[in-house]
Amino acid sequence: MATHLSLALFTDLYELTMAASYFQHRMFAPATFSLFVRTLPPQRGFLVAAGLADVVHFLEAFAFSADDLAFLRRTGRFQTDFLDYLAELRFTGEVYALPEGCLCFPPTPLLEITAPIIEAQLIETFVLNAVHLQTLIASKAARCLAAAQGRMLVDFSLRRTHGIDAGLKVARASYLAGFDGTSNVLAGKLYGVPFYGTMAHSFIQSFDDEEAAFRAYADTFPAETALLIDTYNTVTGAERAARVGQSLQQRGYRLRGVRLDSGDLFALSQQTRRILDAAGLTDTRIYVSGGLTEHEIARLVAGGAPIDVFGVGTDMGVSGDAPALDMAYKLVEYAGRPRLKLSSQKVSLLGKKQVFRLTDEKGCYQGDYLGLRSDSPDEVARAADISPERVTPLLTKVMEHGRLLHPLPSLDESRQYFLAEFARFPQAYKALRAPLRYPVHLTPTLERFQHEAEAQLRARYGPATPQEHP
Amino acid sequence: MATHLSLALFTDLYELTMAASYFQHRMFAPATFSLFVRTLPPQRGFLVAAGLADVVHFLEAFAFSADDLAFLRRTGRFQTDFLDYLAELRFTGEVYALPEGCLCFPPTPLLEITAPIIEAQLIETFVLNAVHLQTLIASKAARCLAAAQGRMLVDFSLRRTHGIDAGLKVARASYLAGFDGTSNVLAGKLYGVPFYGTMAHSFIQSFDDEEAAFRAYADTFPAETALLIDTYNTVTGAERAARVGQSLQQRGYRLRGVRLDSGDLFALSQQTRRILDAAGLTDTRIYVSGGLTEHEIARLVAGGAPIDVFGVGTDMGVSGDAPALDMAYKLVEYAGRPRLKLSSQKVSLLGKKQVFRLTDEKGCYQGDYLGLRSDSPDEVARAADISPERVTPLLTKVMEHGRLLHPLPSLDESRQYFLAEFARFPQAYKALRAPLRYPVHLTPTLERFQHEAEAQLRARYGPATPQEHP
Repeated sequence: MATHLSLALFTDLYELTMAASYFQHRMFAPATFSLFVRTLPPQRGFLVAAGLADVVHFLEAFAFSADDLAFLRRTGRFQTDFLDYLAELRFTGEVYALPEGCLCFPPTPLLEITAPIIEAQLIETFVLNAVHLQTLIASKAARCLAAAQGRMLVDFSLRRTHGIDAGLKVARASYLAGFDGTSNVLAGKLYGVPFYGTMAHSFIQSFDDEEAAFRAYADTFPAETALLIDTYNTVTGAERAARVGQSLQQRGYRLRGVRLDSGDLFALSQQTRRILDAAGLTDTRIYVSGGLTEHEIARLVAGGAPIDVFGVGTDMGVSGDAPALDMAYKLVEYAGRPRLKLSSQKVSLLGKKQVFRLTDEKGCYQGDYLGLRSDSPDEVARAADISPERVTPLLTKVMEHGRLLHPLPSLDESRQYFLAEFARFPQAYKALRAPLRYPVHLTPTLERFQHEAEAQLRARYGPATPQEHP
Repeated sequence: MATHLSLALFTDLYELTMAASYFQHRMFAPATFSLFVRTLPPQRGFLVAAGLADVVHFLEAFAFSADDLAFLRRTGRFQTDFLDYLAELRFTGEVYALPEGCLCFPPTPLLEITAPIIEAQLIETFVLNAVHLQTLIASKAARCLAAAQGRMLVDFSLRRTHGIDAGLKVARASYLAGFDGTSNVLAGKLYGVPFYGTMAHSFIQSFDDEEAAFRAYADTFPAETALLIDTYNTVTGAERAARVGQSLQQRGYRLRGVRLDSGDLFALSQQTRRILDAAGLTDTRIYVSGGLTEHEIARLVAGGAPIDVFGVGTDMGVSGDAPALDMAYKLVEYAGRPRLKLSSQKVSLLGKKQVFRLTDEKGCYQGDYLGLRSDSPDEVARAADISPERVTPLLTKVMEHGRLLHPLPSLDESRQYFLAEFARFPQAYKALRAPLRYPVHLTPTLERFQHEAEAQLRARYGPATPQEHP
């Protein structure tokens, strides 16, 4: 989408008014903003970073079009010299980021951007929006993956995602986090995500007879038939599907699958399996769909329901239990000095940072240290009393002087990276309810730095506003 | 967005495979699909229909591009004659719809589309997605409107809406449902929604001193200054803002507003009001923001907090309490005969329908009758025992033969229509918690029609699958 519509105005107005004031006061020093999530939603144990590719594409293409500038001029709010400045403005900064698919834990930054303050400020809204959406969805999808225990997962959410862009990004982010594919054909075209489909109830209803509908579909797609069997009565639907499956077998094909979309999926999948097996259709797969959540998937899997594929829709596609993350993009340094907001419990961690991941001798995650970018893995290893090769810094420089340093991994590479990392992430942290809290420590240097900066600011401004909920 | 990217592939794969099978079996008869919400989310009393403009633009432009067709060909799933057919395919059907801004109540259809079944099927995913998002958001925004009791409301959600399209549509739908504007500049450009802004904490932090930051901003925008006062300490922030406001007054300007973004908004808005008033800044407005919900707005308004403007963010922009609606697009008639799915509790109402709204002698809403399109207002008036001029049919034909019949109302016209209707909608149905349930009856003709069709289908298919939760 980003390539078809000028997105420089995809911004909150205040970014532009602040920029105008920075410009008037000749404030062009570098600023560092840190993008992070303050706290996890209830019952959540981890996040999966995603959205970096969109950020990079946006920053590389960042420019106000002539049409954008004409619009801003017509508002009467901005001076000509500022608009002339905007006309030439490009993103020239540097970006440190977690790779897509990286597991992360508040308050770890997913991204830190350093650029002249006007640039770093103007891009805030888009960058937050892009990272928020895909991180939200990848994190939710990974819970489904944990629940499905190796069963196939397909994104069926397109009709109820929040708009066009979300429809595409949900397909992408859920695939990144281990889904096998999507129903979304355009995501297949744009991102190469595998796409799947069966049929809708309307197809069955448009024929005079359920079995006639099954046979008609099998006639069109003999090698790829999956039949929806719950339009009238799931058990008789399964029996009719079995007959169609046997006819397909006689013609040298096999019935790929049947889908259940309503009712007691546990009991009905068992009855359906028995009917298919009795007809010799032991390799016909059972798909289920219809209001699935990670909890429902876990329940069905734990009970041993003979389900091969879960079609996961709305609850994943809107992250139903937590449709937003408390994600922020905060100034942490300007003109070489740490910057801090004191009000509320929302104090940010200062300075340019690095995240260090510690693993045990088997490669399993042990905990993270959040430190300053100037901290070395060796120092962290000493502080944690483990050997330096078990400490990995996670934020890497992806852009410099506004240019990508190395090509980004492909979506499939990011997916493989995520799957490998998720396997090293201990089970207790992945629990769907009341997960164990993954340990995130501050390095001694960050702790000291933060403490001194807060003390300095409090000395200047006095105590912060008392809070409603202390 | 729709104009920049071919959206024919913004669809679930099964729409295309079903279409291929309809095509192979020469099924070109007209089908009617009904788009409706099955049940309201918990604590909700109404919906506000929205998204029709997007649907119309999509249907008017509906066509597979050469690139789309080449992609489909490469998948190897489709026959050449079907792809040739798709190349020529345009939407030629008719659309009945509620106007944007219309209050509606499940299971009333928001839209009914009649077209050759392939057309009516292929457009399902986009149509649902578009109507779902904007109806979801307009319905949520209207609750904020009910809560705000005349205070100004501004959409601040852009950074956490689900993607680019949602960012734009949230600004549009919330404005439709009575918001005064948005922070989203691109929505201002594309939809003409008024846009507003103040400043972020980063602006304050980037100066060495809070008052210096205030003065710098006032210097750039003397006629439009609104200052964020909670970066360090809200009370001292208010005092500093008051001094800057007095300087502005001496220069012939006035300080437009101050914004509170954290803390006890009730107490702090009162303290801030006293400080501003004491400085003679009685017309400086108080904006508040920071995690607002309709319930928090109602609490602040009920307590008489001196707040002039609510900046409503994430919770509105993702419809936090109900991030999806149980919206469906169901076949109700094919080739002149009613069609029905029997499984589950999800039985749809059959046939082409009409919604009749009944009002009392003051013009206030009294209840709806859902009937067949062939029902007349006179019959409904007789059934309800009221005079015919108090019965209004709501679904109107907006497209015929694939063409718009009359220009759609402008966004501002739809907003005025919504505001007038919302005023006629009794308070008890608008309650934010446990609202009274608005009565929706079926007309005797629809009831009879439905009963006969169900009986017929059950005679043919036997009892439906027993349900998990009877």
